[in-house]
Amino acid sequence: MNLRELSPEFKDLTILESGTPVFKTYLAGDWISSKELDEVVSPIDLSVFAKVPRIPYGMVDQALSRVYDSGKWEVRDLPGEKRLKIFHGMATLLDKFRDDFVEILMIGNGKTKAAANGEVNASIERLMRADLDVRKLYGEYVPGDWSSESLETEAIVRREPLGVVLAITPFNYPLFDVVNKFVYSTVAGNAIVIKPASKTPLPAIMFAKVAEMAGFPKHGIGILTVPGKDMDKIVGDQRIGVISFTGSTETGERVIKAGGVKQYVMELGGGDSALVLDDADPVSTAQKIATSVTSYSGQRCDSIKFIFSEPGIYDRLRDNLVLEFSKIKVGDPREDVNMGPIIDKGTVDELEFSVKDGLEKGAKILFGGKRIKENYVQPTLLEISKDKVKELYLYKKEVFLAIATLVKVDNVDEAISFSNSRRYGLDASVFGEDINKIRKAIRYLEVGAVYINDFPRHGIGYFPFGGRKDSGVGREGIGYTIEHVTAYKTVVYNYKGKGVWDYM
Amino acid sequence: MNLRELSPEFKDLTILESGTPVFKTYLAGDWISSKELDEVVSPIDLSVFAKVPRIPYGMVDQALSRVYDSGKWEVRDLPGEKRLKIFHGMATLLDKFRDDFVEILMIGNGKTKAAANGEVNASIERLMRADLDVRKLYGEYVPGDWSSESLETEAIVRREPLGVVLAITPFNYPLFDVVNKFVYSTVAGNAIVIKPASKTPLPAIMFAKVAEMAGFPKHGIGILTVPGKDMDKIVGDQRIGVISFTGSTETGERVIKAGGVKQYVMELGGGDSALVLDDADPVSTAQKIATSVTSYSGQRCDSIKFIFSEPGIYDRLRDNLVLEFSKIKVGDPREDVNMGPIIDKGTVDELEFSVKDGLEKGAKILFGGKRIKENYVQPTLLEISKDKVKELYLYKKEVFLAIATLVKVDNVDEAISFSNSRRYGLDASVFGEDINKIRKAIRYLEVGAVYINDFPRHGIGYFPFGGRKDSGVGREGIGYTIEHVTAYKTVVYNYKGKGVWDYM
Amino acid sequence: MNLRELSPEFKDLTILESGTPVFKTYLAGDWISSKELDEVVSPIDLSVFAKVPRIPYGMVDQALSRVYDSGKWEVRDLPGEKRLKIFHGMATLLDKFRDDFVEILMIGNGKTKAAANGEVNASIERLMRADLDVRKLYGEYVPGDWSSESLETEAIVRREPLGVVLAITPFNYPLFDVVNKFVYSTVAGNAIVIKPASKTPLPAIMFAKVAEMAGFPKHGIGILTVPGKDMDKIVGDQRIGVISFTGSTETGERVIKAGGVKQYVMELGGGDSALVLDDADPVSTAQKIATSVTSYSGQRCDSIKFIFSEPGIYDRLRDNLVLEFSKIKVGDPREDVNMGPIIDKGTVDELEFSVKDGLEKGAKILFGGKRIKENYVQPTLLEISKDKVKELYLYKKEVFLAIATLVKVDNVDEAISFSNSRRYGLDASVFGEDINKIRKAIRYLEVGAVYINDFPRHGIGYFPFGGRKDSGVGREGIGYTIEHVTAYKTVVYNYKGKGVWDYM
Amino acid sequence: MNLRELSPEFKDLTILESGTPVFKTYLAGDWISSKELDEVVSPIDLSVFAKVPRIPYGMVDQALSRVYDSGKWEVRDLPGEKRLKIFHGMATLLDKFRDDFVEILMIGNGKTKAAANGEVNASIERLMRADLDVRKLYGEYVPGDWSSESLETEAIVRREPLGVVLAITPFNYPLFDVVNKFVYSTVAGNAIVIKPASKTPLPAIMFAKVAEMAGFPKHGIGILTVPGKDMDKIVGDQRIGVISFTGSTETGERVIKAGGVKQYVMELGGGDSALVLDDADPVSTAQKIATSVTSYSGQRCDSIKFIFSEPGIYDRLRDNLVLEFSKIKVGDPREDVNMGPIIDKGTVDELEFSVKDGLEKGAKILFGGKRIKENYVQPTLLEISKDKVKELYLYKKEVFLAIATLVKVDNVDEAISFSNSRRYGLDASVFGEDINKIRKAIRYLEVGAVYINDFPRHGIGYFPFGGRKDSGVGREGIGYTIEHVTAYKTVVYNYKGKGVWDYM
Repeated sequence: MNLRELSPEFKDLTILESGTPVFKTYLAGDWISSKELDEVVSPIDLSVFAKVPRIPYGMVDQALSRVYDSGKWEVRDLPGEKRLKIFHGMATLLDKFRDDFVEILMIGNGKTKAAANGEVNASIERLMRADLDVRKLYGEYVPGDWSSESLETEAIVRREPLGVVLAITPFNYPLFDVVNKFVYSTVAGNAIVIKPASKTPLPAIMFAKVAEMAGFPKHGIGILTVPGKDMDKIVGDQRIGVISFTGSTETGERVIKAGGVKQYVMELGGGDSALVLDDADPVSTAQKIATSVTSYSGQRCDSIKFIFSEPGIYDRLRDNLVLEFSKIKVGDPREDVNMGPIIDKGTVDELEFSVKDGLEKGAKILFGGKRIKENYVQPTLLEISKDKVKELYLYKKEVFLAIATLVKVDNVDEAISFSNSRRYGLDASVFGEDINKIRKAIRYLEVGAVYINDFPRHGIGYFPFGGRKDSGVGREGIGYTIEHVTAYKTVVYNYKGKGVWDYM
Repeated sequence: MNLRELSPEFKDLTILESGTPVFKTYLAGDWISSKELDEVVSPIDLSVFAKVPRIPYGMVDQALSRVYDSGKWEVRDLPGEKRLKIFHGMATLLDKFRDDFVEILMIGNGKTKAAANGEVNASIERLMRADLDVRKLYGEYVPGDWSSESLETEAIVRREPLGVVLAITPFNYPLFDVVNKFVYSTVAGNAIVIKPASKTPLPAIMFAKVAEMAGFPKHGIGILTVPGKDMDKIVGDQRIGVISFTGSTETGERVIKAGGVKQYVMELGGGDSALVLDDADPVSTAQKIATSVTSYSGQRCDSIKFIFSEPGIYDRLRDNLVLEFSKIKVGDPREDVNMGPIIDKGTVDELEFSVKDGLEKGAKILFGGKRIKENYVQPTLLEISKDKVKELYLYKKEVFLAIATLVKVDNVDEAISFSNSRRYGLDASVFGEDINKIRKAIRYLEVGAVYINDFPRHGIGYFPFGGRKDSGVGREGIGYTIEHVTAYKTVVYNYKGKGVWDYM
Repeated sequence: MNLRELSPEFKDLTILESGTPVFKTYLAGDWISSKELDEVVSPIDLSVFAKVPRIPYGMVDQALSRVYDSGKWEVRDLPGEKRLKIFHGMATLLDKFRDDFVEILMIGNGKTKAAANGEVNASIERLMRADLDVRKLYGEYVPGDWSSESLETEAIVRREPLGVVLAITPFNYPLFDVVNKFVYSTVAGNAIVIKPASKTPLPAIMFAKVAEMAGFPKHGIGILTVPGKDMDKIVGDQRIGVISFTGSTETGERVIKAGGVKQYVMELGGGDSALVLDDADPVSTAQKIATSVTSYSGQRCDSIKFIFSEPGIYDRLRDNLVLEFSKIKVGDPREDVNMGPIIDKGTVDELEFSVKDGLEKGAKILFGGKRIKENYVQPTLLEISKDKVKELYLYKKEVFLAIATLVKVDNVDEAISFSNSRRYGLDASVFGEDINKIRKAIRYLEVGAVYINDFPRHGIGYFPFGGRKDSGVGREGIGYTIEHVTAYKTVVYNYKGKGVWDYM
Repeated sequence: MNLRELSPEFKDLTILESGTPVFKTYLAGDWISSKELDEVVSPIDLSVFAKVPRIPYGMVDQALSRVYDSGKWEVRDLPGEKRLKIFHGMATLLDKFRDDFVEILMIGNGKTKAAANGEVNASIERLMRADLDVRKLYGEYVPGDWSSESLETEAIVRREPLGVVLAITPFNYPLFDVVNKFVYSTVAGNAIVIKPASKTPLPAIMFAKVAEMAGFPKHGIGILTVPGKDMDKIVGDQRIGVISFTGSTETGERVIKAGGVKQYVMELGGGDSALVLDDADPVSTAQKIATSVTSYSGQRCDSIKFIFSEPGIYDRLRDNLVLEFSKIKVGDPREDVNMGPIIDKGTVDELEFSVKDGLEKGAKILFGGKRIKENYVQPTLLEISKDKVKELYLYKKEVFLAIATLVKVDNVDEAISFSNSRRYGLDASVFGEDINKIRKAIRYLEVGAVYINDFPRHGIGYFPFGGRKDSGVGREGIGYTIEHVTAYKTVVYNYKGKGVWDYM
């Protein structure tokens, strides 16, 4: 697999080594190469199409010092309105270099062209909508006289940046997730260092180039293409004030334990539930669910994995789901398909295991269930009775591809209960019209977000999202994440005896 | 040391064993005894004056189940206005049983009568001011049309309780800190289990009795008098959604590493700085600093430990500080003194070590410096030159009693720099009048709270407080802590194609 | 009609004159009598049962000076937490003197005992819930760097009391409306003068006594029992900063024109609409509507006057409405009835006129329609076709008693359109289950408040209410009215060149 | 005086009539001429340089119908993010046509080139910063359980546009004030009709062209060049929901009395006070005050008109003020001057009257005091003793040009008192360093905004501004004015008996 030629701005970041482009990475002012390299593989054919430096720890350590000593002040001393202007410049550049990013997202992630363009668009809109983050950067004035102990005093409570944010991003949205974490961290005045997923590091590197071109403070950003073994040390570094991590529950747990006393945003996924009420429209509901299950091959944290349906609509829903699944074309994402490859073979092995496990426990395959080749799979829909569902491997652990399980339940209460009994709690969808049943589901679902008559879609985080239980803590979303990448500073003014107040 | 007789409501919680009252503890509905007991020692004379059960883990495990399965819903299903009424009832009971609590605080903590009464008053006011927490329990309505991707949708973003809060409280405010964590956890709809400091468990137990009397849901609270060895298991328990910890940085770090993916409020202390500007009033400034250093023997996380003074006021400030320190009477807190004992001998050993360390590094003792007896010390003021201060043991590590170090600096910038170079960042005070210098100090001080012309005083948390760097994450304070004991739930309503909006 | 003997605290405010108690009124520190008196009539039998002073303008002028010069500062200098304590004291006193207030509300307003008790309860809860007003008294801290023109500056924007509020209250809730306006005005730090409805002045006078007993600042309140002819002068007085008026559109218009440049809260009523969707429950919907139409004889600004029903449910709705209307017992409110008298005969004349007008235009009487005696009427339900409804007198002008008109419409869009075509826009109710139709009605209804599956009930204003179009401007409601009785004060701090910021 | 040739886009709006360009105006979709014309005069030489149509009332009436029936929905149905994009397009166009607007502002208003450019820049920034208005368009979710009467219910409280805003703009910022009122009205979803000052109507007309070019909904805006005699009728029109007026107190009063029940934003000016404390810097303070007095010839509502100085700094302040005033060059604004003409001769007559009045009452002229020619004046500084100042005509009534009065007072309390005794209350400045004195002045000054160490500058309204007392009601400012051009809509959801909550 060969990348087509990139624009000069990005090509200059590479040298060819036996025909394979070797990228530099950006560390707080410098473009860095390294003797040790990591291969970047295309999921389309599992071939190596690029290499990136494996930065030695010493270099990371020095870069962190530049970020901590200079970069965090460079960002903080940039007035807010200038931050916004730089973001707008970056948005313009992303659009200008759209073809480069689309190419990398297709080859590096196996995305379809539409999906790759969608990710670029989301990244652009996220940069533009930084203006809506600003509202959370206003502070509060707190009068002192509502408590007897603070008479003749008053306070300002405002948010201050925490200094340096470490962003650890997943493979599936290698551009957008970097952009999102970059925007909310830096709009609030923090510097940022980013550890991209080792499978898909290139969009992060190219994004650093965009930041540089747009005039973002040079010591305020770094892309850490480092080996996993160094991550505990980096995560625990005192110069890091916040860690924003998106990935698996298991890795997330490890990050916190290595990180200690810091602020965390942990987006840990788990697979979402759909609750279908009897008065839902079976056709559009099935369409939305099928889209959610199969979009980007189900490699999305907000992908539906379980469908709990009331009995009255069950048969129509099932038929329509099978119909919708049957429309999904799988293949090389550069062609006219709906679903491309899975990021690696291991996850497909897990699918095969899950299906086998399901069949043993009484599940029926309604659609798919098979590996097509190496890392390509059929979209898969299982059906199982409610008394067996809790035994499923899929119920206990997220399998990160296009597989969902349909379960008939007696009523909305039971649907809620099955959804809540999983250890995850990211999102849930409710399809139906009855305002009372819907409100009840909203209250009892133990998740971060509930979508009414839509599949869960985090999108650019215009509405905040994030998990409960094993799905994480903190929220990503315009404005809301500001709460996690800043700390309150309280300023108490004492005017006792100065004649400002003259209490009776 | 003998406790005077308690009111029957509390006396009934004890049985006498060889003249020493043995308390029961409260676990989600039941008053519990145990074969294994822990001794409770009075710092006044280091004698045992009570015992409490050492709860075996199995019992804790069962109690956690009751709290998780029943208690969290009992609290959440209690309408907010009824929660406030119960808090008011508890405030009335605290006042009714004031003498019992004052006695326990004097004997168990070595507080003076005034200090003990102050803690009861703060606890009462905290319960009454729960009404001001409520404002953070309103949610947001987010229209969808400010982003192109969310047209024809809208959302509600509201806070929901996380379920069960584990409060780990320190020895120094054994009543107030329990009350504070109880109020902000439960006003938001959570249940709570409290691990009181092993040195001062009685106020927490007695407070549970007050909660029971006022009609607080019985499975919604538990007092875990457990051995330290069981804490890692409890901290890591999946049924715990939030941990609110007040204590040392070292223990705090351990809690997070054992706890994993959870929400945390970590109040870790470190000792505060005072910055004295040339135009401050030397007399009142010295009075306030001396009060801050010596109040409750300096065993407060917001106690001043370092004074960085501009040169123009330095000599007058020093003289006044010595004068104020010389007025402090130390002794049995039941008598007319300003400072009682230190909680244990070990901390006094650390004082002696610190003074010796200081003298070796060029410090001069301006006042005190000596152990009076076992666990009683003189309030101590050291002076050291700015080029030596960073070498001090006291600069690197908090010593939790009445000792402060005075340092002459060239100007406010230098004062800020010395304050920021410590690894802690809880609070700072600035004394002076010049609005421009003050504003500069406010911006650059890397702390959670800055007090202008007052010593740092967290009080009931009417203004929020909490640390930066090694002093912790999260904030305690009326309203603000609600942000940490709840999670946002986003409810997205999709009306696409339903004719609600008719965009051009 | 004779009042039963009042408690001594209130009896002392009266002297007997030919058997009729003559009340004093309260003017900023003094209990005042007057030579000229106004009679207070009981609607039960239209007899005079009390008299109140008709204050001459000169006395009002002097009182206004005391309020403006002293009272407004007395209230403002009372710390907020003390204001809340005084309100709690007043709540306790209202409960203590409940029988006196219930008696006055029954005799003076013709309320049933249940209704009178309800008004006392609402008044008590309003005083207690002043704690929830406080959240709107926090201010904002606005950083300067989000606009290029305000770099190196920052601001606090906070609300300040406007000084003196003039409350003009209607006859129908002579206690609660006084309490409500008193609470939101004074919790924000304003003084208040109250012009009670001339028909029902006694609860306001007695409430002033309660305020005095509870220690409210004595120059901070006055009860202006003045003749209508003096009102223009008072309304236009420069010492008045805010006018909060509840009453008719016509009087409201006159108040603004006399008042000029001031802040206004205008609650002007108009009669509410109910929209009934096909999937509503006809039984409970009819019950709720009937309650809304007839409660306190329909003499409520949030009383339903028009019912627009989708066709599928129409017949069942109509039958159930007639059934519910037929259960309403009318009579002396001291007996076991649902509806007492109307406040005066004139309004009953207007009912007769409206019914006649309706019949002429094609309406049919489904229930009632007749005067029972002098100022007692049957609850009345008309039915008219949609092509005639706009011609009705009732459609064009509010008739302030228990009469409603039922209209069959084709669909929810038409229901919205008929509701919006009236010149009023206070509230609307929507009954039904379909979340999509409901959401559409919410968007398009041109009213201040929409109630889903409930009749409009302003209650204590826990949720804010107020009108659009001829129904007024401003909102009454806990917290929200603070916005109207205060003005923002912006404090801009300029630190240019002082080294606080060091922009790149 | 001839206008230089405008860009074709604006030239097309005119026809030449005896050499004078006659402009059309824009009325909700149509460019309109009229038989009757009004002359537009340049203050530079008092010659006619353009004419505008005097729209007959019938045409206004029809235009209002288009705006009310179509325009308000066209704006409201434009999604928010598209509104922002249109504003950005308008900002780009203003910059593109900068020379046209600068020309009109110089010729039509007598502004210097720098001042004219400043107004264009402010207009551009206001359009760009509409993104910061958005935060006030989020609503609230209000849980029902904090009051016993609203259990099992909940509400959304959100802002809705009021429909049509009538903006009445003053002569002095004929572009910016139009832009500002346009932005805050339409970002919130309202349509707008603008009555520009009759002396300076052209920028409004040209701005309508810009709106049209940028794709703003065509029925959503109109420019009403109507005779004053028709204004009462327009102001009272029921189709107008909000009036935003900037102008004199007297006209403002008339507007409200003609308008009746509507929402109002009234910016009425009055002239600002400067309070100078002893510890202020006399040089920079004098510079800032002189700039404030003379900028745009003092024809600004936020211009300083009174200086109350503490005694210690008085002499130095006076000397520096005289020095600064002496540097001001007056003349044709197209040349290198600081101050151009006054808008008309009448105001200069008022200056002469005021100076004469001042001299009679004991004032001394420190600088200026004379008419230079027709409508050009010297910047003028008077000095008067504090016991005479209240008698001055200038103290009682704003004279709208560059004249200020200096008064020595004993202390800050007296300065506050003199400032507050005027009937106006727009802004005040405080110069000095003492944080305690400053805070006291902040509390007691009865104004809408206080500026610390800066002269009052409303600028683009990044910080909100507006008056107390005779200076108006309501606030203009980014975000804040949204509160006045919208109404809350409360949506109460009743779920009683539906099992959503299960209260104990």
